[in-house]
Amino acid sequence: MDINLWNILFEEKQTMHKGLIVQKYGGSSVANVERIQKVAQRVVGYSKKGYQLVIVVSALGDTTDELIELADKINPNPSQREMDMLLSTGEQISVALLAMAIHKLGARAISFTGSQVGIITDTSHTQARIIKIDGNKIKEELKKGNIVIVAGFQGVTLNQDITTLGRGGSDLTAVALAKELKADACEIYTDVEGIYTTDPRIEPRARKIKEITYDEMLEMASLGAQVMQARSIEVAKKFDVPLHVRSSFSDKSGTMIIKEVKKMEDVVVNGVTLNKNEAKITLCGVLDKPGVAVKLFKNLADAGVSVDMIVQNVSHTRSTDISFTIVKPESAKAARITKMVAGKIGAGEVLLDEDIAQVSIVGVGMKSHRGVAAKMFGILADNKINIEMISTSDISISCIIKKKNAEIAVRKLHKEFGLNK
Amino acid sequence: MDINLWNILFEEKQTMHKGLIVQKYGGSSVANVERIQKVAQRVVGYSKKGYQLVIVVSALGDTTDELIELADKINPNPSQREMDMLLSTGEQISVALLAMAIHKLGARAISFTGSQVGIITDTSHTQARIIKIDGNKIKEELKKGNIVIVAGFQGVTLNQDITTLGRGGSDLTAVALAKELKADACEIYTDVEGIYTTDPRIEPRARKIKEITYDEMLEMASLGAQVMQARSIEVAKKFDVPLHVRSSFSDKSGTMIIKEVKKMEDVVVNGVTLNKNEAKITLCGVLDKPGVAVKLFKNLADAGVSVDMIVQNVSHTRSTDISFTIVKPESAKAARITKMVAGKIGAGEVLLDEDIAQVSIVGVGMKSHRGVAAKMFGILADNKINIEMISTSDISISCIIKKKNAEIAVRKLHKEFGLNK
Repeated sequence: MDINLWNILFEEKQTMHKGLIVQKYGGSSVANVERIQKVAQRVVGYSKKGYQLVIVVSALGDTTDELIELADKINPNPSQREMDMLLSTGEQISVALLAMAIHKLGARAISFTGSQVGIITDTSHTQARIIKIDGNKIKEELKKGNIVIVAGFQGVTLNQDITTLGRGGSDLTAVALAKELKADACEIYTDVEGIYTTDPRIEPRARKIKEITYDEMLEMASLGAQVMQARSIEVAKKFDVPLHVRSSFSDKSGTMIIKEVKKMEDVVVNGVTLNKNEAKITLCGVLDKPGVAVKLFKNLADAGVSVDMIVQNVSHTRSTDISFTIVKPESAKAARITKMVAGKIGAGEVLLDEDIAQVSIVGVGMKSHRGVAAKMFGILADNKINIEMISTSDISISCIIKKKNAEIAVRKLHKEFGLNK
Repeated sequence: MDINLWNILFEEKQTMHKGLIVQKYGGSSVANVERIQKVAQRVVGYSKKGYQLVIVVSALGDTTDELIELADKINPNPSQREMDMLLSTGEQISVALLAMAIHKLGARAISFTGSQVGIITDTSHTQARIIKIDGNKIKEELKKGNIVIVAGFQGVTLNQDITTLGRGGSDLTAVALAKELKADACEIYTDVEGIYTTDPRIEPRARKIKEITYDEMLEMASLGAQVMQARSIEVAKKFDVPLHVRSSFSDKSGTMIIKEVKKMEDVVVNGVTLNKNEAKITLCGVLDKPGVAVKLFKNLADAGVSVDMIVQNVSHTRSTDISFTIVKPESAKAARITKMVAGKIGAGEVLLDEDIAQVSIVGVGMKSHRGVAAKMFGILADNKINIEMISTSDISISCIIKKKNAEIAVRKLHKEFGLNK
């Protein structure tokens, strides 16, 4: 073939717009020089295939934790504004280094802070919410043929103060950019290959889930699955941005998080989750009359304790017990408040049990299937596992059991609900 | 005294505007948590005395070098724009930490990046020049009673790209802010107590200079004194901003760098400098006709080699020798170019000598005193030190000598020109 003609065809192929992908790489994906180079290779590979790319990057490995530690030595109670000023440097370092790594491979790239691409947030420092994104700068750079690299986790107020978005903030940046830019795909790269039916460290036969709905993923995230923060899934759901959660260490496709999964009828339970980070408090001998629960939970809320499950049995005598769970770091505080309330309302003993685990099954299929809860209780009973508390939602059922039974419960539920490979 | 009255008087004293000081703290002054706390104490001390304060900070200790090293591993030839993106994080970390340290002491402070306070530069990344500063944001914050902390070394282009100002950039930030804000003083804090008559590591009897003119300081900086970069002194001179160079580890006053020093008549020589970082190249047997020197030095300039001293003797034969000095890292390149030119113009041998030192005396008093050069040559001759090259300016005389004689030359000149304590 004539070389010129070949060049023309080749260039056409290069510039052909195959679609816009937003890719987000977490801290473990850019933890060191070698990994940054790997990410650069992957990104350039997509670019050569003809995709336009917007890359969102987190801070390198443990950078954020190291900066927090440094700040803590100087002021254990730092100004939130200054904390954001400090922490936002982590992502700024990442984007500059990734741009350099991409340049090294001969491709075009340009990096930006959240402020530079107009990620405007409210003024809630360290927990800011995105108000709007001005996508024009990114669009201009894409048109110039650049791979656009954006610092995750950060934004800027209308007053030009730097803000950060809180835990899972870089996922949020990616989702918000995908929505604003009407991206064809939003890929979340992490150190696992996707969302699994349960934690593979507990059940080696755990399967990677091909497709999962936003609602199921939200439920799983809140019940202990740690791949993604609930907040970014909520935003993805709100704007219907399909997410592809996958590994930055392999080329396999991961898990799609989408609005609706076809053939969901067949699958009743999509995942089994385990949360060992909760503690249970029981307030015994509460007089069974209106207003008692309010008193307890208002006091807890006022003290900033967030309560997860609450169970109060119908009483056959004049008094009853109230049990609830909280995250372990708050258990001492919660017990103190409960004792204080117990004294005031003349209730009995307050019991704190940190030796518990919450095991849950999640699946949108539950909505249209009966007997799922009964089946779960049966499986646990067959394995002589006592259930201490039960809580249900539309698409999940959770049981509190003794911690020592946690792993066996997960494995039995995983098997009996047909999730093993 | 009535307590209320006392409070009123005290508060009045607190809010009384005693003047605006710009203070700049270098990397060694904020190298670790303890030093940052010390700086905070000093700053709060000034604030309590009633001064308004704008603090310019460099990156912590070796942060900048570490970031450069990291970048080099990823791309040995990085984009200058991305380099600025990367390096500017160093100062951003410093300002946030210093603000936290000041808050810890109960004082009010707020930190800003160069971009946030409107330090607008041209687009020469890594070597940007300040075009203008919008001082309004800083003035507003000062009015609110804040100590304003500004990241040194950095600015932003009109297109919102982050830039850095090159070596000594934080000094430049301080000087430019002092000018823009019409500050009453500009203090440059460093790890030495001021400018000395010579390097105290060579001559322990070196004295701290109380006052020195911009011109002398410029001459000393270009001749090897390393306390301040020439560029910020040039700017200070241009806008007549008096500088106070002093130690962040002591309360002693340092050296004032100002326009004119009184009683300068008495002092002929103000300092002795030494520069061991140069090499000498001699091109022998050059035909003594017009155009030869041009050919050589144009080639060197085109290759980016900057030449310091140049000496060509009046020749008594038809050929002559040309000698010049360059900084050592450029000596191999310069020698290669000189050999290439020698070949083209039919000159003789090219000699490279890296075993030299440049010793200089500096003083505005020279302008009005005769015989200073002769005295210098006499002192060197009395000590059997051969002079290989000589160069003079209005306020300085420099000699190239053998490196092994460098220290003794400095000490003898320091003594004979009356600079010993």
